[in-house]
Amino acid sequence: MIEIDGAAALVVRVSDDEAAIVDGVASLDHVFLGGEPDLEEAAAVALERGRRVSLEGAHWLPPVRRPPKILCVALNNSANPDRILSGPDTPAMFVKPSSSLVGSGRPIRLREEMGRVHPEPELAVVIGRSGSEIPVADAYEHVFGYTIMNDLTSPTMRGEDTFHYRAIHPDPDAADGIRYVESWVSYPARYKGTDTFGPLGPWVATRDEIPDPHALRITCSHDGALVTEDNTANLRFSVAEVVSFASQYMTLEAGDVIAMGTALKRSAKGGAVQNVDLTRLGGVVEVAIEGIGTLSNPVEHR
Amino acid sequence: MIEIDGAAALVVRVSDDEAAIVDGVASLDHVFLGGEPDLEEAAAVALERGRRVSLEGAHWLPPVRRPPKILCVALNNSANPDRILSGPDTPAMFVKPSSSLVGSGRPIRLREEMGRVHPEPELAVVIGRSGSEIPVADAYEHVFGYTIMNDLTSPTMRGEDTFHYRAIHPDPDAADGIRYVESWVSYPARYKGTDTFGPLGPWVATRDEIPDPHALRITCSHDGALVTEDNTANLRFSVAEVVSFASQYMTLEAGDVIAMGTALKRSAKGGAVQNVDLTRLGGVVEVAIEGIGTLSNPVEHR
Repeated sequence: MIEIDGAAALVVRVSDDEAAIVDGVASLDHVFLGGEPDLEEAAAVALERGRRVSLEGAHWLPPVRRPPKILCVALNNSANPDRILSGPDTPAMFVKPSSSLVGSGRPIRLREEMGRVHPEPELAVVIGRSGSEIPVADAYEHVFGYTIMNDLTSPTMRGEDTFHYRAIHPDPDAADGIRYVESWVSYPARYKGTDTFGPLGPWVATRDEIPDPHALRITCSHDGALVTEDNTANLRFSVAEVVSFASQYMTLEAGDVIAMGTALKRSAKGGAVQNVDLTRLGGVVEVAIEGIGTLSNPVEHR
Repeated sequence: MIEIDGAAALVVRVSDDEAAIVDGVASLDHVFLGGEPDLEEAAAVALERGRRVSLEGAHWLPPVRRPPKILCVALNNSANPDRILSGPDTPAMFVKPSSSLVGSGRPIRLREEMGRVHPEPELAVVIGRSGSEIPVADAYEHVFGYTIMNDLTSPTMRGEDTFHYRAIHPDPDAADGIRYVESWVSYPARYKGTDTFGPLGPWVATRDEIPDPHALRITCSHDGALVTEDNTANLRFSVAEVVSFASQYMTLEAGDVIAMGTALKRSAKGGAVQNVDLTRLGGVVEVAIEGIGTLSNPVEHR
C-alpha cells in the first residue's frame, strides 16, 4: 500500500523502483474482509496495463492497515537456548495493537521517557484464510504471504511494567481458602505496543513466491552499518508449528499478522540489536529479508 | 447487539425484558468508523416507534464486535497494595485480541489442558472519540460509554508462558558489548486472549447515564452464589487517569475498549475469584455492574 495524492492505493511490484496500481481493490484489508474481486487477476491486469508509479520517495502504508490481531512470538530463537533458565516448550505470544503499525519510510517517534528502544528484525506471516485448531500439515493453506516487521521493544518500559507480587492461588488444603505465591508478571502493551513500534512492510510476498520461509537471510542495519544478520532457519518454532499452535487457542482470522520472533544467531556480526538504543542514537533502522524487501524507518524525537 | 433470525441488530434498552431495534444503524462498530446517521436520534426514534423484541433467550453479541484494540489494566486494585512487592506507579496494560470476545449468554469454551481458568469482573470503557496525549481533564470527552468485561484468566497458562531468562543488555563499560541480566518475563496472548476469554456486554451505558464511573457496585457470582462484591471506587487508577496515560503511548481509536482491571476489596465476601476454577467446576458465571446490567455466560467443555 502506498499513499498517492492523499489516497491509499494497493500496488504490485514491477521492480525495485517501480510499482503498478491495482485497480478495483481498495486494500488487502478489503480482500480479507471478503467481497472484493479476484486479487490475483487484478494484480495480473495491473502488471500488464496498470498505471505505473515510481517508488522513489513513496509514502508507504502498512500492507495490512488494521489486522484483526497481531500475534508476536517471544524468544523464538534456537541459537542460544542457554539464555532460557525456565520457560515453555510451546510458542509464547503477546498481542501488539494495530495502532502501533507504520509503513516503511515513516518515522519511529520516540520520547526520552520511553527509555531504551531497540529494533527486532522479524519475518511476519499474513493469514489469508481463517481457521481454528489447524493441523500442522494444513497450516500453509491459511498463509496468504510474508512481510517484514520491526518489532520495536523498550526494555526500559518492560522493566517498569513488571510486577514482583504475591499471586492469589486456591489453597489445596482448604475449600475456598487462598494462599499467596510469590510470582513475576510483565505486561507488554506499552513496551511493545506504543505508536510507531510496529513498522511493517513494505511488500507482502505471496506464499507461492516463498516456497520455504525457513531459508531466508535476514539483516538489521542502523545508519548503514550491519547490526545483525541471521537466517529464518534459526527460528525455534516454524511457521507451520506457530500457526497450528496459536490456532488451538485463538481463531486466526484473514488479515491477522503473526510476527515470528527475532532470529538472532549467537555468532551474529556487529553486536546485538540491544546495543542499538534508538532513543539515544536516532538515525535510520533497516530490516531486510531475502525475497521480500527492505523495511526502512528513520527515528524522530518528539 | 443481538442476533435475530441470523442477522445482527443494534438494540436500545426498553426494560429488563424488552428492547427496541435501532433502524438504519448497523452496529456501534459502524458508528465508530463514521458515516452512520446520528445514533442518538436513531435510538430515540427506536424507543418511540421501533420494533420491540423480547430479551428472553436473546442471542447477544459483543456490543462492539471488533474493537481496534482491547486494552486491559493489570492489578488495578487499591485494596491490597501489600500484595505488590515491586511494580510500576503507572497503569500496566496488555492487549486482548478481539477474537476472544463473546456476547452475554454465549458459552465460555474450556479444555482440560487450559488448566485453571477464573473470572475477573471488570468495568470496561468504550472509547467514542479518537485521540492521543489526552490530558486527564479532557479524558471523559473521549468516552462513549461503559460496559462489562469478564476478563477470563488462566493462571496455569500464565505460569507456562513465563520465562526466567538471561536478558541481553548493553554493557555500560564496553561500547557494543553486552551483559546478561537475569529477568522474568511473561506473555499474555494465550492466558488472557484464548477464544471466549472475553465475555463483553450485554449493554453499553452511555457516558451521560453514568455520571460517576467510580461509584458502581460490581459483583461476580457462580451458579447463583456470590463470589465477590466490590465497588469501582476501589480501582487504583481512575478511568480518566488510565485514558490519559494510555493515550500518551497508544493512540486511542473510536471503538477501542479499555477493561479497567478487577476491583476486589480484601474484605470481599464469598472467597476469591481465583477459587472459581471454571475448567473444573463448569456452571454459569455472572458479572453485574450497577447501572449497566448483568453479563452471564455458561461454561461448555469442548
